Amino acid sequence: MASHFADRVCQAVKAKKTPLIVGLDPVYSRLPAAIRNKEGLNDSKNAAAAVDAIFEFSLKVLRIVAPHIPAVKLNIAFFEKYLWEGIESYYSLVSEAQGLDLEIIGDVKRGDIGHTAESYAQAHLANPELEGLDDVLAPDAITINGFAGSDGIVPFAEVAEAQGKGVFVWVRASNPSAAMIQDFADADGVKMYEKLAQVVAEIANQTKRIGTSGYSNVGMVVGGTSGEQTTALREKYGKILFLVPGFGSQGATAADCVRFCKPDGSGALINASRSIIYAYENEKYSTQFGDNWEKCIEQAVIDAKVELSKAMQ
Amino acid sequence: MASHFADRVCQAVKAKKTPLIVGLDPVYSRLPAAIRNKEGLNDSKNAAAAVDAIFEFSLKVLRIVAPHIPAVKLNIAFFEKYLWEGIESYYSLVSEAQGLDLEIIGDVKRGDIGHTAESYAQAHLANPELEGLDDVLAPDAITINGFAGSDGIVPFAEVAEAQGKGVFVWVRASNPSAAMIQDFADADGVKMYEKLAQVVAEIANQTKRIGTSGYSNVGMVVGGTSGEQTTALREKYGKILFLVPGFGSQGATAADCVRFCKPDGSGALINASRSIIYAYENEKYSTQFGDNWEKCIEQAVIDAKVELSKAMQ
Repeated sequence: MASHFADRVCQAVKAKKTPLIVGLDPVYSRLPAAIRNKEGLNDSKNAAAAVDAIFEFSLKVLRIVAPHIPAVKLNIAFFEKYLWEGIESYYSLVSEAQGLDLEIIGDVKRGDIGHTAESYAQAHLANPELEGLDDVLAPDAITINGFAGSDGIVPFAEVAEAQGKGVFVWVRASNPSAAMIQDFADADGVKMYEKLAQVVAEIANQTKRIGTSGYSNVGMVVGGTSGEQTTALREKYGKILFLVPGFGSQGATAADCVRFCKPDGSGALINASRSIIYAYENEKYSTQFGDNWEKCIEQAVIDAKVELSKAMQ
Repeated sequence: MASHFADRVCQAVKAKKTPLIVGLDPVYSRLPAAIRNKEGLNDSKNAAAAVDAIFEFSLKVLRIVAPHIPAVKLNIAFFEKYLWEGIESYYSLVSEAQGLDLEIIGDVKRGDIGHTAESYAQAHLANPELEGLDDVLAPDAITINGFAGSDGIVPFAEVAEAQGKGVFVWVRASNPSAAMIQDFADADGVKMYEKLAQVVAEIANQTKRIGTSGYSNVGMVVGGTSGEQTTALREKYGKILFLVPGFGSQGATAADCVRFCKPDGSGALINASRSIIYAYENEKYSTQFGDNWEKCIEQAVIDAKVELSKAMQ
């Protein structure tokens, strides 16, 4: 395993021949009936049953998708909802995924400054050294919120670097109301997200953060459905890996997403979550595979890869 | 107990005669020797020992400060550092503090959109109803990050409202690099944080969110050391409760902070963290009280109250 996060990502994208990654946002009520009806898991009002069901589902999804894609994104909010029980389950899944030859991105969007940022970085990026937690693995990278500027980014970047890991700073979201804040423009028409991208790039472009792949371990999150203008970020920041959420259920098309890849296919990770993990709810798959929900998910991953591949031609 | 967060805060500020609140950012290596040397707690390399020591310290601090102040702020990052073990400890402290007649603010700075924001709101504001977690209490309010605009604020505000709780949106930080993003100005000189404050105020000022005190359950976090210009937020947004961090060790003076209070003393909660909880490291107190670290903390709270009170005259 290469010791630089961006190098590992580039190798994995090449090996799996796709920038597609799968996001896990598991919700108990949408799990396959086959899991929800199992003894011990069939009690929606019991925290342990819900956490165990979500874990079982998530682990199966990881095993289904692992041969096809370079990385997965685990959205911690859907585990945090179950307080410490969910958090323990989240870290167990991270450890499991590490054994499946996947890069793991923890979608945690933490953001704060100084000692607080350092503590979050310890929690989410550092493999714990304390006795009692020393068999736990933290994700390979996390998403963070750069609202506080470099003071809120550097502490994460430093821990990431020391651990051979990465961070993706949330630069431009894809939700409708994001524009009000993130497209707020100065007298020259420069938008706030462009200013934030500059701040991120100054940190990301430092020589010590660049791997042999030419990419930095500090990347950016830019929504697939964000306006055309964001494509300029790809041209402007050659050393940046983009994490692009929104492919599939959130409304971004393959073309919306692949604009963050370079012509050689590197430079972006494109995330689809619900359109893949709940593929068994989609008639297109359920009529073909019936109750075989695993097969629905696998086919959805394969189809999404083909879609992205076509869009890149 | 009044059912509206802002009303409870106003009552508590009046009863305790101060806007001062104490922030808990506990770090194992700075705990009093009397705690760190205890059997079972004296192993800095063991996660359980560190978590237990931090819990014991934090609970003592809560009991010392409770008679003097209206609220406490628990910084979750310092617990999250110990993964699920720390998170369990955090919620135990929240429950303990609820029994001490304190309003509890969880400093969690979560920020995301849609279902993810809803999941975070469930985790951090809703008292769990699931069997196995139903004796847990969540904080009375949390801090959130409004980078995504209203889509990232409303889901939290809705859960808060349903639970008689509150949210404080991080509007202007006090760290040096915050200016680069948050003071980013448009052609009219309006700064990004002012725009964000407008977005927050539109949500906060909805009639359904205003308590009998006249304040909203949706407030703003504005750093005490942020420039003079932020004082205008107090004048402009009469229904907003401000959470003002930075008093004491972070460099904000009493005058820097009380500018967010109205003349009647309401309207702001002023947070001091390290200057209070580590008061036993301060010669001013240690020469007076020796090894009695509890007494050092108590005196520091009393002194800080007097300081704020003088600044308000």
